[in-house]
Amino acid sequence: MSNHQIRLAARPSGIPKPSDWELTEEPVPEPAFGELVVANEYLSIDPIMRRWAAADGPVGIGDVMEASVVGRVTASEHPGFAVGEHVYGGFGVQEFARSDGTGVTKLDPLLAPLTAYLAALGIPGLTAYFGLEVGRPEEGDTVVVSGAAGGVGSISGQLARIRGLRVIGIAGGPEKCRWIVDELGFDAAIDYKAGAPAVRAGLKQHCPNGIDVYFDNVGGDILEACLARLARRARIVICGAISQYNTTDVKGPANYLSLLVNRASMTGMVVFDYADRYPEAMREMMGWYQAGKLKTKEQVVEGGIEKFPEALLMLFKGENLGKLVLKVAD
Amino acid sequence: MSNHQIRLAARPSGIPKPSDWELTEEPVPEPAFGELVVANEYLSIDPIMRRWAAADGPVGIGDVMEASVVGRVTASEHPGFAVGEHVYGGFGVQEFARSDGTGVTKLDPLLAPLTAYLAALGIPGLTAYFGLEVGRPEEGDTVVVSGAAGGVGSISGQLARIRGLRVIGIAGGPEKCRWIVDELGFDAAIDYKAGAPAVRAGLKQHCPNGIDVYFDNVGGDILEACLARLARRARIVICGAISQYNTTDVKGPANYLSLLVNRASMTGMVVFDYADRYPEAMREMMGWYQAGKLKTKEQVVEGGIEKFPEALLMLFKGENLGKLVLKVAD
Repeated sequence: MSNHQIRLAARPSGIPKPSDWELTEEPVPEPAFGELVVANEYLSIDPIMRRWAAADGPVGIGDVMEASVVGRVTASEHPGFAVGEHVYGGFGVQEFARSDGTGVTKLDPLLAPLTAYLAALGIPGLTAYFGLEVGRPEEGDTVVVSGAAGGVGSISGQLARIRGLRVIGIAGGPEKCRWIVDELGFDAAIDYKAGAPAVRAGLKQHCPNGIDVYFDNVGGDILEACLARLARRARIVICGAISQYNTTDVKGPANYLSLLVNRASMTGMVVFDYADRYPEAMREMMGWYQAGKLKTKEQVVEGGIEKFPEALLMLFKGENLGKLVLKVAD
Repeated sequence: MSNHQIRLAARPSGIPKPSDWELTEEPVPEPAFGELVVANEYLSIDPIMRRWAAADGPVGIGDVMEASVVGRVTASEHPGFAVGEHVYGGFGVQEFARSDGTGVTKLDPLLAPLTAYLAALGIPGLTAYFGLEVGRPEEGDTVVVSGAAGGVGSISGQLARIRGLRVIGIAGGPEKCRWIVDELGFDAAIDYKAGAPAVRAGLKQHCPNGIDVYFDNVGGDILEACLARLARRARIVICGAISQYNTTDVKGPANYLSLLVNRASMTGMVVFDYADRYPEAMREMMGWYQAGKLKTKEQVVEGGIEKFPEALLMLFKGENLGKLVLKVAD
């Protein structure tokens, strides 16, 4: 048995190419004292990976690509982890990972499917949870979510619905739009693939009193369209900007002065700042999930880690419905 | 005696031209029952006037140009105002104004020169006061102010100093930079006319731990330079954007994702939202002024209302030191 790995071969320029990564092979690692070894089962495909691979990112040329992963302990010299336990951690795009246990948490596969721990019951869910909090929603507010059929957006919209808020999702294509309304309970959907005028018209129609909270996962034209439709004292939460991650020529929102006119704010949030509150949030999320109020959906790419570059491209093309994950092995 | 007026003749395109306004003449108004008539003495030249004259602004073609004015009551049928009293109000760019007293406040010319009520002791001072509050400064913070030698910026910097914060001002040219440091007590000044690399270098030198609060009066390149130097959890207060008021091709901040990386916020503020707290703020500002802790400086353009277009251009060229006011008459 060997450990296959995806390593960064070149800094992507623009849209990443398969040749920006290379497949390598090593012996399966053995745990030293205080360590465990994990067989990776599913890994999370995230927009931020594009930034991790950039020149100022944390992944160096020749390094195993970073990734959040769920897997199973196959060997352990660590007192806290036993063989057979399921765990979550930053195990990277590889088949096996060795770890000293830092940042590794245990999962219960009886409570939810493993992939859910990379979606609603994982970091995307927590991002939605704390991101919505940054938006300080109030009763009667209209919340707009972009990337609404994606890993974070599909959860933020549902959490806003759980709070009784009116939620409009912006997503690409009729299938995603139907899904967020019919399956996830969004109040309305706007198809950005219908073009910028349709987005503006949709926002006008569905947000007659303006947007109170805009949860931004995409940036670019959609951010501008939402800025143009803010209610007084609106809060924009900047959670991501997938439309801008493949360019160095980032487009800033030309109408940012809408913040001034509307006494509105735009605030960046990074989920890791809330780590000490993960347990509390997770309990609440798990409760909603078990009560059937919170749905999680993962789109699973099969074929092992070799499919990593392809899966990442799917994400940037917006081809995923729900959280995109790559199946490493059974 | 007649009343000369400056009326909007055309919507300015780009930098305003003198021909965008026309000089008209009318009889001096008489007060009806419940009204007063004011002889305007000094009027405030403000960046926002450019927006008032734009197609979506409040001033129509043929209307008297709006302006904040200090003057003296020359006739009154209003029980609240007596002839000879000094008042502040939105009296417009004209020599005499008739008013029903709405939004008119009395001034004491013995406490401060009349022009100060258009500067530190008026709306610019209140803008600085509440704008700084929006920035939620904390002990030990580094505050950066742009337009630092202007009407609002020169006060916000001083208010930050009064709170014991470290204050860096960005202003145009060595004279302004010397003034804000030597006369107003800023900790350091950065001359933006020395070019963008000098601004970046200055911010790096004077904000070694990053900017905690950025009070933005200018937008454009300087906003981008400050975004690039934010501390974690920084607060940007968007108070104005004088660099962008003469263009329809507004430049959004291309590096707005610094808000995400730094968990920072950018919030628009409009002073009029704080009207119910003006008295409290004014008492505090007057106290600091009388204690010599808060300096007010007005640059007075002589020559009457005919000089209005010229004065407005001076503002956009950054030729004023302190608050720019136009003298209407003695």
